[in-house]
Amino acid sequence: MAVYTEVTAEELDALLERYDIGELTACKGIAEGVENSNFFLGTDRAQFILTLYEKRVSPGDLPFFLGLMEHLAQNGVSCPTPVHDRSGQVLQTVAGRPAAIVTFLSGYALLKPQPAHCFALGSALAALHESGLTFPLRRENALSLAGWEKLFAALGGMAGKLQPGMPESIGAELQTLRREWPQNLPAGVIHADLFPDNVFFLNDKVSGVIDFYFACNDLLAYDLAICLNAWCFEPDRAFNVTKARALLNGYNSVRQLAPEELEALPLLARGSALRFLLTRLYDWFNTPDTAFVKRKDPMEYWRKLKFHQDVRTPGAYGF
Amino acid sequence: MAVYTEVTAEELDALLERYDIGELTACKGIAEGVENSNFFLGTDRAQFILTLYEKRVSPGDLPFFLGLMEHLAQNGVSCPTPVHDRSGQVLQTVAGRPAAIVTFLSGYALLKPQPAHCFALGSALAALHESGLTFPLRRENALSLAGWEKLFAALGGMAGKLQPGMPESIGAELQTLRREWPQNLPAGVIHADLFPDNVFFLNDKVSGVIDFYFACNDLLAYDLAICLNAWCFEPDRAFNVTKARALLNGYNSVRQLAPEELEALPLLARGSALRFLLTRLYDWFNTPDTAFVKRKDPMEYWRKLKFHQDVRTPGAYGF
Repeated sequence: MAVYTEVTAEELDALLERYDIGELTACKGIAEGVENSNFFLGTDRAQFILTLYEKRVSPGDLPFFLGLMEHLAQNGVSCPTPVHDRSGQVLQTVAGRPAAIVTFLSGYALLKPQPAHCFALGSALAALHESGLTFPLRRENALSLAGWEKLFAALGGMAGKLQPGMPESIGAELQTLRREWPQNLPAGVIHADLFPDNVFFLNDKVSGVIDFYFACNDLLAYDLAICLNAWCFEPDRAFNVTKARALLNGYNSVRQLAPEELEALPLLARGSALRFLLTRLYDWFNTPDTAFVKRKDPMEYWRKLKFHQDVRTPGAYGF
Repeated sequence: MAVYTEVTAEELDALLERYDIGELTACKGIAEGVENSNFFLGTDRAQFILTLYEKRVSPGDLPFFLGLMEHLAQNGVSCPTPVHDRSGQVLQTVAGRPAAIVTFLSGYALLKPQPAHCFALGSALAALHESGLTFPLRRENALSLAGWEKLFAALGGMAGKLQPGMPESIGAELQTLRREWPQNLPAGVIHADLFPDNVFFLNDKVSGVIDFYFACNDLLAYDLAICLNAWCFEPDRAFNVTKARALLNGYNSVRQLAPEELEALPLLARGSALRFLLTRLYDWFNTPDTAFVKRKDPMEYWRKLKFHQDVRTPGAYGF
């Protein structure tokens, strides 16, 4: 959540003049999206979100992200749709940063999703995967095995400060994952960051999915494994099999998971836990104390990794 | 700007059930108000702001603040109006904190106000002062002379770390202000924190004034002195007499400043500069590095204080 860059009224006026979306009536920085600056825009016609892309998003990736949102929206996935200016352009420059105006989605994120929400999330995730199959652009997952190894090397043993033995344990896990990571599962566009704050609900139905700035091409079941970690653990650290089963059932109701995808879930869940453990560790040791963002607890994902390491079959998830 | 407290969907639903304002369609934390957590609420009928009062706002002061906003709105000042629930109540408890829903104001804050905006601000300030005269509640200004002396004592010489000699200089200034502070100028309800981020504009007109959580009873001209400091210095530190003149003319167009108020402005401006210097110094040395708020630069107000100390007559402001 953040607003890193401020936008002057002059810049806003100049921006809005390029569009045919009405007269600006409101602009407020909003606490949404960790990586970018986001503003709620009201005009006399509708509501929008203005996003300024900060340095963690590579400008070269923006055509993929914005194109994907437009493609998904056209294929029935409720997600922010980039708005074209009068000349047809989506990407702008505001306050010296790449920027885009997207549509405003109804609904709001749930801090405490229930099993019914996990079912709805599963269906939405499968629909996103199906719609993504026809998207023509590609983006490698920079945060898969090779990326994890880079992060691990950059950490250079620092993790031991948080928990003795953690570096050795991560090193061994990386070796296992490198050896056993599945190669032939169905792949396509994945969201790759579908945490509860990126899913809006209205009347217990998914009203929208936001924040596609980690989206990439990877194994579809890996996206489900990310959700398993992000949605199915309780604040007391317990794994909630009812939620996991609901998530899987919801997914299967739209796209039936293949037996080999199900079989791979424990390993994919370990990979997903390691991915967030590593990025959180990196941020933990590299975010200046004076920074504007709250650092997320790496230990949460350390414990999730340990949990999945003890899982032998998908049956342990309640499947 | 901040969201200190998160609100669950369950809490939101329970809150909205108390009101007759429609069904919730959106909720977003917004970057508005330094002291509290603020959320944009959309319903199928209108837009609102939900404010959760954090620890810097004393619950005992809330009837004054909320009552004032309602009183001002009823008297033609465009400001957030507290919304009453079905039982007539305004003050609620959300996530363990005092909370209120207020109306949503059109417009947006200007980062670079121009002289025409200063004129509009002056008029709005005078209208606020006039409307406040009939408000029956009272609240002492905790950040006037006695409050400054307390803050100065609490700092105990720390200011010298930022600028050698600053503690001695502040001590001398406090003595001067204590001796010369005017006693018999017109008083009433003042906003006391009317910085550019608390004033919304639409088509160069003031569309609303927000953030009344420093409002109190004090000298009306002191509020104008606060605006002089907050609106009439340029980023390069120069005092802009054109803006100051516009501010005064705007004020006079609604409520004519008495000659003795004008005469007192240089001293009131010194007091106002000292007030923000002291609170910024206090925050500078007492905000933990890990805190979520950006600390504001005390030196900006140190330089403003120095500027006003050299002013002999209001003529120096371009009046």
